[in-house]
Amino acid sequence: MISNPYNPARIPAGVVERLPQYARTLASLEEQGRQVVSSQELGSLLDVSAAQLRKDLSWFGRFGKQGRGYNVRQLLDELRRIIGLNRQWRMALVGVGRLGRAIVGYEGFTPQGFRIVEAFDSNPRIIGQRVDGLVVRDTAELEAVLRASSVDVGIVAVPGDQAQDVIDALVRCGVKAILNYAPIAGRVPRGVRIKRIDPVLALQGMTYYLKQSAASAK
Amino acid sequence: MISNPYNPARIPAGVVERLPQYARTLASLEEQGRQVVSSQELGSLLDVSAAQLRKDLSWFGRFGKQGRGYNVRQLLDELRRIIGLNRQWRMALVGVGRLGRAIVGYEGFTPQGFRIVEAFDSNPRIIGQRVDGLVVRDTAELEAVLRASSVDVGIVAVPGDQAQDVIDALVRCGVKAILNYAPIAGRVPRGVRIKRIDPVLALQGMTYYLKQSAASAK
Repeated sequence: MISNPYNPARIPAGVVERLPQYARTLASLEEQGRQVVSSQELGSLLDVSAAQLRKDLSWFGRFGKQGRGYNVRQLLDELRRIIGLNRQWRMALVGVGRLGRAIVGYEGFTPQGFRIVEAFDSNPRIIGQRVDGLVVRDTAELEAVLRASSVDVGIVAVPGDQAQDVIDALVRCGVKAILNYAPIAGRVPRGVRIKRIDPVLALQGMTYYLKQSAASAK
Repeated sequence: MISNPYNPARIPAGVVERLPQYARTLASLEEQGRQVVSSQELGSLLDVSAAQLRKDLSWFGRFGKQGRGYNVRQLLDELRRIIGLNRQWRMALVGVGRLGRAIVGYEGFTPQGFRIVEAFDSNPRIIGQRVDGLVVRDTAELEAVLRASSVDVGIVAVPGDQAQDVIDALVRCGVKAILNYAPIAGRVPRGVRIKRIDPVLALQGMTYYLKQSAASAK
């Protein structure tokens, strides 16, 4: 691969969104022992056109050789480096109720380099409890703790009416990425990223088709 | 609005994905008492261009009047009808561990018309328990129960190594939409929709930017 200098701030958000999906598909091809993949095949596995795939990757330099396809391992390594998947990310969880406990127990984080290193709750009955090796701290101590021990990502798992206050506190601590499980949109200043885990939006992306199949079954 | 006949199967998936987001933004404008919104403003609230917004809506007929913007209430009502947000959807949950309990307790479903009406688990200590008014049934009874009392959506909240079996069972019962919380991709036949709640993909969509801000802080 020939690296071109690129301006990270200019990469369209849609491209950045797709990179982790490309990396995931390449990782599964690698697991299957595949060494080479064409842009056509990789695109079709991801539901994007070969042209879109080549255009997305071209933001980051030249990958693959004309007519030979991509080397799976090389492209995966490059993407991991670009996205930042080749390192560990430290996360703080706020809210250790049912949802927070489920998040602590989620099997998918650790293999991908995401580790919950602090957990906070404001309920006196939950503070001090040990959950999967973490001792739950008082949310009132959030800012003091996170100023001393910085984290990369804040996870918000409190009820909707407390979520914006928690987001604001995380932002004051310098957290630049927030994963929001609360059922509110959440406001953050420029320079801070927030992603909402939104099962209702996922459901609403399917009801359109349910409606069609119900209508055609009549 | 002048309705044009449209072929639902021909609408691009990307357009269908965006409709619930348009509806959500319109609902929040309506709550603020707004009566009219331009395609420019609605687009900018949603991070899509005015042209894209107009093109997306044009699949479903003609909305709004040239130069006058959209009537918020009317467009919202139409979108709700198109997406199927104006009705109740019945859901069955499989897996009532920590994650499943958090899902049962999620505050966001009911106000949007999504109701969990059945819950299943294979753990004898969980079967028969009452969780928020639902009695947990044995997963072995899944097919018998769902053939008798049909649901629109199946929610999968079992560990990754059991998830595909549960998905297959839901498909055999005729469930056409699956919300998958398990950390696997999940295979479904044509005609069945599946959406994965994937916190790792959401995190990986932010690490690219974290990497940049860490680099520029050096």
